Amino acid sequence: MKANFSYVGIRVKDLDRSIDFYTKLLGMDVKRRSKIKETKGEIAELQSGDRRFTLELNYYETDSPYDTPYVVGEGLDHLAFDVEDLVEAIEEAKSAGYRVVLELKTEKSRWAYVEDPNGIWIELQ
Amino acid sequence: MKANFSYVGIRVKDLDRSIDFYTKLLGMDVKRRSKIKETKGEIAELQSGDRRFTLELNYYETDSPYDTPYVVGEGLDHLAFDVEDLVEAIEEAKSAGYRVVLELKTEKSRWAYVEDPNGIWIELQ
Repeated sequence: MKANFSYVGIRVKDLDRSIDFYTKLLGMDVKRRSKIKETKGEIAELQSGDRRFTLELNYYETDSPYDTPYVVGEGLDHLAFDVEDLVEAIEEAKSAGYRVVLELKTEKSRWAYVEDPNGIWIELQ
Repeated sequence: MKANFSYVGIRVKDLDRSIDFYTKLLGMDVKRRSKIKETKGEIAELQSGDRRFTLELNYYETDSPYDTPYVVGEGLDHLAFDVEDLVEAIEEAKSAGYRVVLELKTEKSRWAYVEDPNGIWIELQ
């Protein structure tokens, strides 16, 4: 079929804490925030940089049928962000209290993974 | 920090079956496929439509330290694709043997979720 990959939606445990991470640490902008009556949920749509591809944060109220126990799981391997200076970015994440879970270095490149407030791996490169 | 959301990486259980789903059913193009020596893994980079945002499929060999038991989990809520005709798209997914897990309809819009070969929810809208 003819289809267009339009956005990625992650589920979050705490919408405000997650918005803080993606806006204050990673510099994304909140484009829209709205309650979804049908799912007893709330979403925030974020974008950043030149690509303006949407990251949707999905939160479900505790009485929503979709508020199932939260396990990060393997489906989402990671979300990747290009940064200007990797060393500075790692320091900034640490100072803000976020966990740097892995740093990798090859002859050609260097990158690191930081955990978002939900335990999702964020690749900085 | 100044950062740019650059791609989303999902983990897949079977790279060829997953490539089939995203290319044959959803019409994405494989831009690059390569083995990653450091992780004993293999990745495929796919894009579609106007946005050309990359979906990276991450596969790990059975002797890779990253080949942990696969649970889809809650981290990735869904990946969304715009389609031209939702009714046709649902029929095509069913004919190809994929499971339609949920169909939703409000006064203003209609959308559906199909499971990819890994159990990841794909929103068609």
